[in-house]
Amino acid sequence: MSLRELLLGKPLRSDDEQVEQIGPLSGVPFLGLDAIASASYGPEAALTVLLPLGVLSCNYIAPITACILGILLAVFFSYRQTIPAYPQGGGSFTVAKENLGRITGLLAGSALCIDYVLNVAVAISAGVGALVSVIPSLLPATLWICLGVLFTLMLVNLRGVRTTGIIFMLPTYLFVLCLGAAIIIGIAKIILNGGHPAPLSPLPKLPTTLHSAGAWLLLRSFASGCTALTGVEAVSNAVPVFRRPKVKLAKRTLAIIVAILAFLLVGVAFISRSYGITATVPGKPGYQSVLSQIVSAVTGRGPFYFISMAAILMVLALSANTSFADFPRVCRVMALEEFLPPEFARRGRRLVYSVGIIVLTILAATLLVIFGGITDRLIPLFAVGAFSAFTLSQFGMVEHWRRSHEPHARRSLILNAAGAVVTASALLVIIVSKFAEGAWIVLVILPPLMALFIGVRRYHERLHRETDKNTPLDLDRLCPPVVAVPIKRLDQPSQKALQLGLSLSDEVRVVQILAEEIEAKNLAPQWRDLIEEPIRRIHHHLPQLIVLPSTYRNFYRAFLDYLRQLGKEFPGRQIAVIIPELVERRWYHFLLHRRATWLKNSLLMKGGPEIVIITQPWYRK
Amino acid sequence: MSLRELLLGKPLRSDDEQVEQIGPLSGVPFLGLDAIASASYGPEAALTVLLPLGVLSCNYIAPITACILGILLAVFFSYRQTIPAYPQGGGSFTVAKENLGRITGLLAGSALCIDYVLNVAVAISAGVGALVSVIPSLLPATLWICLGVLFTLMLVNLRGVRTTGIIFMLPTYLFVLCLGAAIIIGIAKIILNGGHPAPLSPLPKLPTTLHSAGAWLLLRSFASGCTALTGVEAVSNAVPVFRRPKVKLAKRTLAIIVAILAFLLVGVAFISRSYGITATVPGKPGYQSVLSQIVSAVTGRGPFYFISMAAILMVLALSANTSFADFPRVCRVMALEEFLPPEFARRGRRLVYSVGIIVLTILAATLLVIFGGITDRLIPLFAVGAFSAFTLSQFGMVEHWRRSHEPHARRSLILNAAGAVVTASALLVIIVSKFAEGAWIVLVILPPLMALFIGVRRYHERLHRETDKNTPLDLDRLCPPVVAVPIKRLDQPSQKALQLGLSLSDEVRVVQILAEEIEAKNLAPQWRDLIEEPIRRIHHHLPQLIVLPSTYRNFYRAFLDYLRQLGKEFPGRQIAVIIPELVERRWYHFLLHRRATWLKNSLLMKGGPEIVIITQPWYRK
Repeated sequence: MSLRELLLGKPLRSDDEQVEQIGPLSGVPFLGLDAIASASYGPEAALTVLLPLGVLSCNYIAPITACILGILLAVFFSYRQTIPAYPQGGGSFTVAKENLGRITGLLAGSALCIDYVLNVAVAISAGVGALVSVIPSLLPATLWICLGVLFTLMLVNLRGVRTTGIIFMLPTYLFVLCLGAAIIIGIAKIILNGGHPAPLSPLPKLPTTLHSAGAWLLLRSFASGCTALTGVEAVSNAVPVFRRPKVKLAKRTLAIIVAILAFLLVGVAFISRSYGITATVPGKPGYQSVLSQIVSAVTGRGPFYFISMAAILMVLALSANTSFADFPRVCRVMALEEFLPPEFARRGRRLVYSVGIIVLTILAATLLVIFGGITDRLIPLFAVGAFSAFTLSQFGMVEHWRRSHEPHARRSLILNAAGAVVTASALLVIIVSKFAEGAWIVLVILPPLMALFIGVRRYHERLHRETDKNTPLDLDRLCPPVVAVPIKRLDQPSQKALQLGLSLSDEVRVVQILAEEIEAKNLAPQWRDLIEEPIRRIHHHLPQLIVLPSTYRNFYRAFLDYLRQLGKEFPGRQIAVIIPELVERRWYHFLLHRRATWLKNSLLMKGGPEIVIITQPWYRK
Repeated sequence: MSLRELLLGKPLRSDDEQVEQIGPLSGVPFLGLDAIASASYGPEAALTVLLPLGVLSCNYIAPITACILGILLAVFFSYRQTIPAYPQGGGSFTVAKENLGRITGLLAGSALCIDYVLNVAVAISAGVGALVSVIPSLLPATLWICLGVLFTLMLVNLRGVRTTGIIFMLPTYLFVLCLGAAIIIGIAKIILNGGHPAPLSPLPKLPTTLHSAGAWLLLRSFASGCTALTGVEAVSNAVPVFRRPKVKLAKRTLAIIVAILAFLLVGVAFISRSYGITATVPGKPGYQSVLSQIVSAVTGRGPFYFISMAAILMVLALSANTSFADFPRVCRVMALEEFLPPEFARRGRRLVYSVGIIVLTILAATLLVIFGGITDRLIPLFAVGAFSAFTLSQFGMVEHWRRSHEPHARRSLILNAAGAVVTASALLVIIVSKFAEGAWIVLVILPPLMALFIGVRRYHERLHRETDKNTPLDLDRLCPPVVAVPIKRLDQPSQKALQLGLSLSDEVRVVQILAEEIEAKNLAPQWRDLIEEPIRRIHHHLPQLIVLPSTYRNFYRAFLDYLRQLGKEFPGRQIAVIIPELVERRWYHFLLHRRATWLKNSLLMKGGPEIVIITQPWYRK
């Protein structure tokens, strides 16, 4: 078993696809990890913005959560309609492209791509950051741990869909169970204590500042809280990974994910309000995350607390995986439209889109390296991509229903239109309120990224225009090529090349270039006995031996000059250059002779259309 | 004019060699810089070892310098005899190889190679170190300045011999003039003052320790002082760079270099003794180099002092250049013996051995990067290589004269034998006294380096054994190959490939592999009209269209499997695979289609000896 097989598993047959398909049980961890994990940072982000309000801030968490929940439901219902309408997957890109035109689709696709790359970097560094704050001695290795997690995610995803779903099942459900249990116990305690329970662990104290809450502050808090919704689109992008009946299972999976997320958001908001839990200042002494405060207030700092914290940490780091599930699929549909090279649309040995997975890894690794594994500053950039995609996808669905003649089209149109308006408003709020914090960066990156995609497409279009041909094969000048064999000595590889040349053409030129005196071994004496004699005997045209001096010791140039001259001598005929190439058993032996490679490249680049290059391998013993 | 031409100059014709040859005036800077510059660190190194003796140390500098001078003369006389005996250059390697056997020659060559690489790194970092101690704000950029100097040296040397000689003339002669003037003025003052002159600048004070000088201390001081002799062999390695009469000019150049070096060594020793100048502790506050003390004591700290210091600094950094002159030439003669790939023996566009220059740059850059630009610790390693080469070369000359029947052979033999004994003893002293300081490292590196060279030679020998052929060309099975054309679409490049295939053979197979559904465009309908019809019309054998499904989506594997099957169908015939390859005008467009390259490589590596690969370029507009 090779290392590759050990890491990636045996190759899967194309008709094994069925085996690599999943149901809701592994679909929730595979596609929902990002959405569910965002319950751990969404409310925290909203509360952090409210910090200037001090203890009053927990009064505002309920209405803000209600707004977010409203958007979540709008998004849910519209993606629920997208799944059966576009069962081939592709989500926002496909929906926007089909209904609003290719460029709008590209905008949605580009926004999603940026979002996914950011998500990988931010999620991993958040998880590793939490780990490092528990075990500070790991601090110097932050970047290396981040890269290790990233590399592991890449390998797991390259192994295939099923492996990924199974591996992520445990932490996902552990996270849901722990946080769910804490919420239920908390709610029970709140009811038993008439709405004013006593925390089991002391809560951090905040100054009782009495700023009144301005609209701007509340808007910003809402915009930050919207990060809780990132990842909801994942299921609609990946419908084909489900078992049959695909649409039904995908819808069920989406419903489960949204239900879990909604329950967690509501629970967190309710408990925060009742226990009076607020955010603490990040990066300052005494900082404690909202979830940590909730769990310790409800259950105390026992083993349950630590298991919950471990689950949060794992889910944060692994929520990067949703990007690994979706990014390659978005790239695939963009490659099918020729916005990316076709490699992005090919499934690798384990039936996953390996190129997309590897490209995502490289991009995220670059971000991690640039930011040294600490990517807090990237968080504000985050929701812009997701909400752009949401909005475009909804408007696309509106257009879809407008054209459709299905029975429920009108009702569906209204649902999607409502969703579109809601997410568009949220997007506007996010862009305006987070513009200075970094949202502008996404707006700066989008145009060149789209230009790149369009450039790739134009390239492919131009290529097709140039090379497409629908006329019958032209056989007017079916004439064997003139053959040139560059040689140094009359050794076995050269003789093999000469044999091939004689079998291909009557016009064979054997070219020896005297570039340096050390190679100047005169072939003439051997030539007559070893070459000309046997050829005369079979009455074949004799090859010519051409010995060329090279004034500038540049073998390649002298040879190219000769070939040009040969081209003038035989106008209209192709010139086949036979290059004997040693094939070594050890890679480092290739370092000892680069000449064949150089010659091939220089002929290919500068030779001209009438030159074909024939490589004749000589296998070393 | 391209960037390359701007940096390296126009290519030189092979018969321009004459233009690139030099006389003693530029030969002294080109080949003597290392030897002359060592006058600035040799005496210093000897005095530093004597530090425990305090002010008494300057009493011992005279006898130690006398010993070193003795060796210098011995080395001079023997290399003076080597030049006419081996006018083709190559120095120690050639002399040892011709007279003491190939392995002994290799030992001398390897020792020299190590020495040259060390010399480049140490000389540059010494020069830059001196510069940085004058302008401390440059300290953080030490490594970058070192690499900049190294890169400049590489460019200058790649431009050719004459450029190098001319550029280095000014600093070399400035150094000799300044130091010579200081010495002559100093001697005049000593004589005028009856042997006890008063220094114009106060000298650093040393404690009057009264250790008596043990033999071990004196031996170590002598061994350190011997670094003053490195570089004397340079002229004998590079006789061919001189104008005619080569031997005479080379001898004259060597004599000038040795005379300058001897004068400087004697002068430094004499002035040190009379003025009571000793070394100061390196790296400690109050450190001042011996040459700085001499010049400031004799002439005061005026403009002359600063010009002299600048000249010393430049000469130190540029003394690396002697290695650039010699390393490629040593590599060349070793490449002629096949201990290195033949590229080392080829002259580049400016008639210099470019590969050797570039390899030396890379090795020295590696050393500089590893040691962060501060290579003091490498200095003890230094003299071992040079003295090994000296000794082996002398013993080689002894053997040469023993076999020779020339008139003065006997006298010459005695001279070289004396030289051999002297340098061998010095080598022994150096190894023993500097073993712990690092000389052992050279002894550790030598065996694997020699093993590498022998491995390369064995590789070449095996290659010749395998490929040499002195029997007539075998023409028993002169039969055109079976042609296979892998295609995706029936576009123009594919049709061009098919035309070529039809012109080469009657057996043509067009292979379409359905690796992924997106590429599955059925060719059958077009095939009949566009391909078969016109071929039928000219009564040519019809090509077969083979459509292959690929179970594992691996295009390469499926295609290789098909070729194996084809090989069984046509045993003994070659199979020519015609691969249409797009040749782009922009390099980054090549990133968009890697398939042709992958296919070629995988066919070359795994195809087998009966497969030849035909690349048909399709030039993009």
